Amino acid sequence: MTRVAPDEVRTVTCIGAGVIGGGWVAYFLARGYDVVAWDPAEDAEPRLRHLVELAWPALTELGLAAGASTDRLTVEHDLAAACARADFVQESAPEDLELKRSLLADIDAATPPGVVISSSTSGYGMSEMQVRCAGADRTVVGHPFNPPYLIPLVEVVGGEATSPDAVAWASAFFTHVGKSVITMDREVPGFIANRLQEALWREALHMVANGEATVEQIDRSITDGPGLRWPIHGPLLTFHLAGGQGGMAHMLDHFGPSLLSPWTRLDSPELTPQLRDAVVDGCLEEADGRSIDDLVAERDRGVIAVLRALGKV
Amino acid sequence: MTRVAPDEVRTVTCIGAGVIGGGWVAYFLARGYDVVAWDPAEDAEPRLRHLVELAWPALTELGLAAGASTDRLTVEHDLAAACARADFVQESAPEDLELKRSLLADIDAATPPGVVISSSTSGYGMSEMQVRCAGADRTVVGHPFNPPYLIPLVEVVGGEATSPDAVAWASAFFTHVGKSVITMDREVPGFIANRLQEALWREALHMVANGEATVEQIDRSITDGPGLRWPIHGPLLTFHLAGGQGGMAHMLDHFGPSLLSPWTRLDSPELTPQLRDAVVDGCLEEADGRSIDDLVAERDRGVIAVLRALGKV
Repeated sequence: MTRVAPDEVRTVTCIGAGVIGGGWVAYFLARGYDVVAWDPAEDAEPRLRHLVELAWPALTELGLAAGASTDRLTVEHDLAAACARADFVQESAPEDLELKRSLLADIDAATPPGVVISSSTSGYGMSEMQVRCAGADRTVVGHPFNPPYLIPLVEVVGGEATSPDAVAWASAFFTHVGKSVITMDREVPGFIANRLQEALWREALHMVANGEATVEQIDRSITDGPGLRWPIHGPLLTFHLAGGQGGMAHMLDHFGPSLLSPWTRLDSPELTPQLRDAVVDGCLEEADGRSIDDLVAERDRGVIAVLRALGKV
Repeated sequence: MTRVAPDEVRTVTCIGAGVIGGGWVAYFLARGYDVVAWDPAEDAEPRLRHLVELAWPALTELGLAAGASTDRLTVEHDLAAACARADFVQESAPEDLELKRSLLADIDAATPPGVVISSSTSGYGMSEMQVRCAGADRTVVGHPFNPPYLIPLVEVVGGEATSPDAVAWASAFFTHVGKSVITMDREVPGFIANRLQEALWREALHMVANGEATVEQIDRSITDGPGLRWPIHGPLLTFHLAGGQGGMAHMLDHFGPSLLSPWTRLDSPELTPQLRDAVVDGCLEEADGRSIDDLVAERDRGVIAVLRALGKV
């Protein structure tokens, strides 16, 4: 077992160097790691170095870790060589189950025992990807968002054969490198954020398909509307403020039936007392003592900051 | 006909002084209008003045119009008196169709002929609300987002009996006062942004109902994930960047089938060639000559600005 502590990782191996894999490479370099990359494409190295160069000014602006340098990137042409000295592996191959299965098995065979192997998959469960890995217990999903060098979120979840230790290690490591980690205790297709993104996406496609709105109208309805609130409080706490002083409880008790109104093609779940309480309690927990007035003030400061930041005032 | 030009409006009447109506009052005061407000509640005036006071620091920070003052608010106890000298009326009563029908008829009877009457309704079509108005031709929906004094978006759409002139006038007026206006050419339940919000909301409720994610996880999956991109490019142009240099065309042609993956409970529309082209062409139109690289640079600057603005770095 050669698994070091999350804060003792020195070498990160990135398998796949497209937009996501390359973004991970740039991020890990900026956080001061030695990064080894592998990608089967002929022109992988120049493309990857170009991608890192494009991301570097943003990463520099956000602050590089001590010793961080693009010179610490090595591109290997042999997968086994790329994995041989990894303290952590992040796989970002195309979304193709067969490919992921076989690639993860190869990575697993080449990576020192115990070292955690994480997949950037945007939707497959690790249970279905880890089937050919002898060391399936150390394989996890670590799902980032584009661009991985800027968006903090990483969703971490194991598969059936994954050990809880590996999940905990991956969450600790991603937290250590500065990510906002959501550790899921079960596999849900699309995880969390992609399910929400996809709901938005499908509704938008329906609107375009029916000629109800143009692409530009859909995008502007978000950029100049609710999209200005979501980075501050998220969709649920945002609605906690739509109910006035009564918060989410008032909102659900008062507007509950409008859940049945025919907005969106997505069927509404039945608003059982259990669901009502789960949402209300969840909001209060998330608010963590902040009153509606506190949250309103926070939202207003946030929206102004976002408007200013984006040059919208 | 006493309809003045959009830039010659001096007095705005706001009917209903709850969270949305009060937010409109604060906004119109900040833009330098005389504002007359009416609300049937006993304590409407103190509540409204409190709400305006709470909003005023934010509005001051964003810049008040010349002569803007909270002293220019008059609260009338008689609906007819409130409407008598209006150059524009914004109705923000509770979401109750019967109430809206009767209130709009009363407003219509009391408002000088030709003056545009706009409703803040978050989902009713004007066709179903304007049925008792003799002057139905000047009634429109002008749907704002909470808080109306900060969020720029206003969705404008008429009903069956509305004249195109009134829709054009309302759009011009909201634009003149600094709003980001989307003029819809047909009534769609929930308009645009609320359909998208509602899709997100319903998917989130399903996840909570099934124990797949907590309220906090759902919110953080957005605040630290895709919510950081949406205020910059909106959901569709954001995906235009997910396809690499090939943009939305590559994305749809490559990932099209994944539209059928079981993320979200919202059924996917059939990806016909027509729909594919509409989305691709819409993205190119919206990009308006900006290359993928331009858009990526813009997104990165934007995400950094939003992260900084919200103290997330």
